[in-house]
Amino acid sequence: MKALDIFFRPETVAIVGASKTVGKVGNVILSNLLESNFRGRVYPVNPHVDSIYGRKVFASVKDVPEQVELAVLATRAEVVPQVMQDCAEKGVKGVIIVSGGFAEVGDEGMARQKQVKEIAEQAGMRVVGPNCIGVYDSESEMDTMFMPRYRMSRPRRGRIAFITQSGAFGIAVLDWAASRGFGVSKFISLGNRVDVDELDCLEYLADDEQSRVIALYLESTVDGRRLIDTAKKVVKNKPIVALKAGVTARGAQAVLSHTGSLAGSDGIYDAAFEQSGIIRTYGPQDLFDVARAMANQPLPKGDRVAIVTNGGGFGVIATDAVDGYGLKMADFSEETTRYLREHLPPIVSTRNPVDLVGDADAERYRLAIDALLEDPSVDEIVVIILFQTPNLQPDIVGVLAAATDKRQKPILVCTTGGDFAELHTRMLERAGVQVYPSPRRVVRVMATLLEYRKYREKLEAPTKAL
Amino acid sequence: MKALDIFFRPETVAIVGASKTVGKVGNVILSNLLESNFRGRVYPVNPHVDSIYGRKVFASVKDVPEQVELAVLATRAEVVPQVMQDCAEKGVKGVIIVSGGFAEVGDEGMARQKQVKEIAEQAGMRVVGPNCIGVYDSESEMDTMFMPRYRMSRPRRGRIAFITQSGAFGIAVLDWAASRGFGVSKFISLGNRVDVDELDCLEYLADDEQSRVIALYLESTVDGRRLIDTAKKVVKNKPIVALKAGVTARGAQAVLSHTGSLAGSDGIYDAAFEQSGIIRTYGPQDLFDVARAMANQPLPKGDRVAIVTNGGGFGVIATDAVDGYGLKMADFSEETTRYLREHLPPIVSTRNPVDLVGDADAERYRLAIDALLEDPSVDEIVVIILFQTPNLQPDIVGVLAAATDKRQKPILVCTTGGDFAELHTRMLERAGVQVYPSPRRVVRVMATLLEYRKYREKLEAPTKAL
Repeated sequence: MKALDIFFRPETVAIVGASKTVGKVGNVILSNLLESNFRGRVYPVNPHVDSIYGRKVFASVKDVPEQVELAVLATRAEVVPQVMQDCAEKGVKGVIIVSGGFAEVGDEGMARQKQVKEIAEQAGMRVVGPNCIGVYDSESEMDTMFMPRYRMSRPRRGRIAFITQSGAFGIAVLDWAASRGFGVSKFISLGNRVDVDELDCLEYLADDEQSRVIALYLESTVDGRRLIDTAKKVVKNKPIVALKAGVTARGAQAVLSHTGSLAGSDGIYDAAFEQSGIIRTYGPQDLFDVARAMANQPLPKGDRVAIVTNGGGFGVIATDAVDGYGLKMADFSEETTRYLREHLPPIVSTRNPVDLVGDADAERYRLAIDALLEDPSVDEIVVIILFQTPNLQPDIVGVLAAATDKRQKPILVCTTGGDFAELHTRMLERAGVQVYPSPRRVVRVMATLLEYRKYREKLEAPTKAL
Repeated sequence: MKALDIFFRPETVAIVGASKTVGKVGNVILSNLLESNFRGRVYPVNPHVDSIYGRKVFASVKDVPEQVELAVLATRAEVVPQVMQDCAEKGVKGVIIVSGGFAEVGDEGMARQKQVKEIAEQAGMRVVGPNCIGVYDSESEMDTMFMPRYRMSRPRRGRIAFITQSGAFGIAVLDWAASRGFGVSKFISLGNRVDVDELDCLEYLADDEQSRVIALYLESTVDGRRLIDTAKKVVKNKPIVALKAGVTARGAQAVLSHTGSLAGSDGIYDAAFEQSGIIRTYGPQDLFDVARAMANQPLPKGDRVAIVTNGGGFGVIATDAVDGYGLKMADFSEETTRYLREHLPPIVSTRNPVDLVGDADAERYRLAIDALLEDPSVDEIVVIILFQTPNLQPDIVGVLAAATDKRQKPILVCTTGGDFAELHTRMLERAGVQVYPSPRRVVRVMATLLEYRKYREKLEAPTKAL
């Protein structure tokens, strides 16, 4: 069993501070575990309650009639040290402290946090938090996110692991991702990092088979040098995509009052990310835009982009973006050009961007995309689909899914619109096709795929040192 | 009656090329006008059909038994010149040619377009198009957008006028805007600009009472000098927000093959926009992000931004963005700081960004926002609301709506999430509160409000020449 497995798929969990009151933290966490397909055995603990939902409630962790692997603490901060002591005596292996009231609230809290740390270290218990959301595992359905499901959706299974230093940031983004249908493998909110930190998580997730990419929201790091060293090792296997907040002087001040930690200068992080191959992003959407592509797309061999569209304007904007993000518009091979001219109506513009024009149907897209997949002078394909036009039927989903299945190069789709476009976007996403809502975002993502490819190549080149 | 009124609220409209076949252009346009609250009288014209939906169909425009103000042409390109001749003889005042097959398809089409232009000029008819989507007016419900409503939503009434050179761009963005609940006053797709061009539209919309801001998608202009002169006059009354596509060398090439017009160099447009006070944007979302704020927000007096949040991480990212976009984080007055300290719980961070923390309710937001509205050292307010947290109830909508009603400074809201957040976003938007999905986008919009304010001040300063 690996170090952090205990948090993501424990066999026995005690919920300390379990509550009958709907909406309270200790109620929501208990409900989540009972209502989901989580397979571990769950023990509510609360000295003031006898039973919740017909289940016996134990006065202390120590009363639980079997070994407790993981304890989730949702009590007031004041009693946390005593509960930690109980956990230590019980032989609990891991503790998630969701309770707030520690280093983030001043001297008294700081002292309490120190006490918690000492108890954990003496007992050899691993701790996530305090002052955190905890974890979510889409496979085991372990879930300590104390937001009711009517307020916050849970993402489906996926390949993106998500580490966040800010709990609120984490749940807002996770909720958004879930509603868009984006999958997540594991989520962890670090809180005050009394023990488990971003470095532990990176190391753990590097070997996690469910996770193909690690998305990281960071305001400060516990150890810059070690972050670089750890990341260097991880990115050999899978990409790390990071959003560093607190990059300006005033932003760093905000970090200090938010988490009590030093943000460090932006330039230092920039250099550290570049050195270690971490892909830097600039906002929550950008973080997931890039992570989604990294989790699902093959890496491009070069910088030559082909664009296929049924709306000339979007083709132009995407072309601008290709130049803007340092990529190149592909010049198609003679064979491709001839093939497109022969098989597509004369009104179609067969140069790059290929404009299939407003009456394009799925078959026209299929012809164009297949030719571009074959063309060795094309490294990546951006497909723009405007669903407002009359001839596009749902068979476009099959065309894109088939192209995605056999592709050796990245294919990303861009579409913009209302309910009809949204419906098709979901159909595409479900079929494994990745869709973005603006030409710039789709091209930006293409550029990061190439950035990661280049870093990997540099790593693999035996003669060059980093 | 003003020049282009004929296109937006004609009393009599002939649909030439009206069709029985569901989904055909001439069918969709007819259906749109018959099914909506459009009050003009509608006459289907088609020599091959006797009746459509129980209505008599006329063989020619000339057979319509009263004056025809506007003719909408949805026929094959080949017959357009003859129909134009009929319109001229009938004394039609305006023609919208949605048909394609003109300058955009080569020499033959070019000749046809020239012919159309000559007929119109001789008869003194105004023409929109050819090769365009035509118009949409949310008040009169005049609508020539030949996309069925199940594919494309129509936006509700609003204050944004939208001029687009690319039809596909226009409808995709309009559909998106409609689905987000954003209002639009008038929409016009220019097509090949045989007569009505962006300059006519800017002049017309400058005086349009329904429109408070003009959003413009442009790939090329018919006259750069006149664009500057016209825009200069317009922006005294209302802002113009523009997206110029074809800004890179390869993008300009794409424009050439898309519309057959020269895009001009990016630097020239940049200078022209700056000189004439046009706010430049960089993508479809950005265009509407900025236009929405321009249509609804008061202009800020300065660059000092206050941020209120219930999630520290989002506060940090927004703070970074404030620095990044050249704005300043406000330093609150002593009175504000004292008031916030006295009235908010001790865990709340009362410095800027104000972190109301995870258990914030609507009342906490009300207290903070009201204090910031009063504080003379705050010019603009960004309110970040994460709806995943437990204590936020729908009364937050009332709090924001009340603040918006009495505000003298811009208030923009940022939220991110799934269905629950989305529901509240719509409630807020309906209540007149503007919501954006990311901290960067909301701060970017704030910066453009100030940019426009500064341009207006420069205009009004009597001693300074532009």
